[in-house]
Amino acid sequence: MALDKTETSQKVLEIAERLLNQGGAPALQARAIAREAGISVGSIYNLVGDLDQLHGMANMRLLDRLGEAGLATSRKLKEKGVTDTRERLLALARTYLAFVQAHPVGWTALLAFSPGRMAADAQGAYETRLDTLFEIIASVLADDKALMVDNARARLSARVLWSSVHGIVTNSAGRRAQQRQGEGVWDQIDLLVTTFLRGMEPR
Amino acid sequence: MALDKTETSQKVLEIAERLLNQGGAPALQARAIAREAGISVGSIYNLVGDLDQLHGMANMRLLDRLGEAGLATSRKLKEKGVTDTRERLLALARTYLAFVQAHPVGWTALLAFSPGRMAADAQGAYETRLDTLFEIIASVLADDKALMVDNARARLSARVLWSSVHGIVTNSAGRRAQQRQGEGVWDQIDLLVTTFLRGMEPR
Repeated sequence: MALDKTETSQKVLEIAERLLNQGGAPALQARAIAREAGISVGSIYNLVGDLDQLHGMANMRLLDRLGEAGLATSRKLKEKGVTDTRERLLALARTYLAFVQAHPVGWTALLAFSPGRMAADAQGAYETRLDTLFEIIASVLADDKALMVDNARARLSARVLWSSVHGIVTNSAGRRAQQRQGEGVWDQIDLLVTTFLRGMEPR
Repeated sequence: MALDKTETSQKVLEIAERLLNQGGAPALQARAIAREAGISVGSIYNLVGDLDQLHGMANMRLLDRLGEAGLATSRKLKEKGVTDTRERLLALARTYLAFVQAHPVGWTALLAFSPGRMAADAQGAYETRLDTLFEIIASVLADDKALMVDNARARLSARVLWSSVHGIVTNSAGRRAQQRQGEGVWDQIDLLVTTFLRGMEPR
């Protein structure tokens, strides 16, 4: 029984995700996908445009998963009655770190990917995905009435925290000496979140 | 007249730097270097080991240049009598941003390079280069007696600031929408440095 277009696209996307998580962007080959999906190379291009589009679509799924993981963490903390802002931010940072460590190859491929290689409307959808992730952090800051931040400031602060944690994670990968000196990834994230939040508090 | 080994190595390194700044790691080809240096491909391998070693050596020169730029900024501020910690940190961040923007391709290639691909002793030298850069920031924090930080805390804080600025710069590259919303690279760096430093101050 032939699969319909939506099912085939779905299948191609799943294969693309697996290939990216195993071998990064160089592993994303039309021939390999076609063979696994049991369709022709031409069909791949008909379905997804080109490989850049496909990589972008796979990245969006990865971002969606990260967003779901972040929301799941927020939900769990709420159930436990955790309202402390620092604890909430650290839990989100821990979720991010675990996610990156669970998808090391695919995440590196995502970071090296430029959304500018996608069609214009897809680029918009891509950036919206990222903004949704910032919103999770921004809402934690906005919830803390003692911080007295408006939406614009909460969003800018969320962006800074996100990029900073990202920088710490990427810079510290594989540097074992740091770990020994008490300057490991988690020591740095904890210091960042704690100090930044303290600096946000009105005196 | 034949060049001696040191001169030839120097020449090979300069060619490697130029190729990396133009085309990134894929442009670093033994054949292209040999042609430009007027030596055989075999001589390249005799001189520098392999292309990973050569990339690492070129990166170390890039890190040295960044270090020199940072020290030049510190010197200029000293001459002007600037002692404010926030101003000093922002000036260093601005130096870093300008440096990355002046070497976009070579810097991206440096970030994608894993020092683990170099020989063990070269790896040590590589990490020492990075530590020298952190020291520039750590000394600014240590100079500020009001912060009351010991050396270990100054170094950890310097590492956090460095990685955070790095994360902001890499995450925001090419996102013009952010610039329009007042969430551009510099808005983020300013908020990070100002808030983090405020959070470090004893109350």
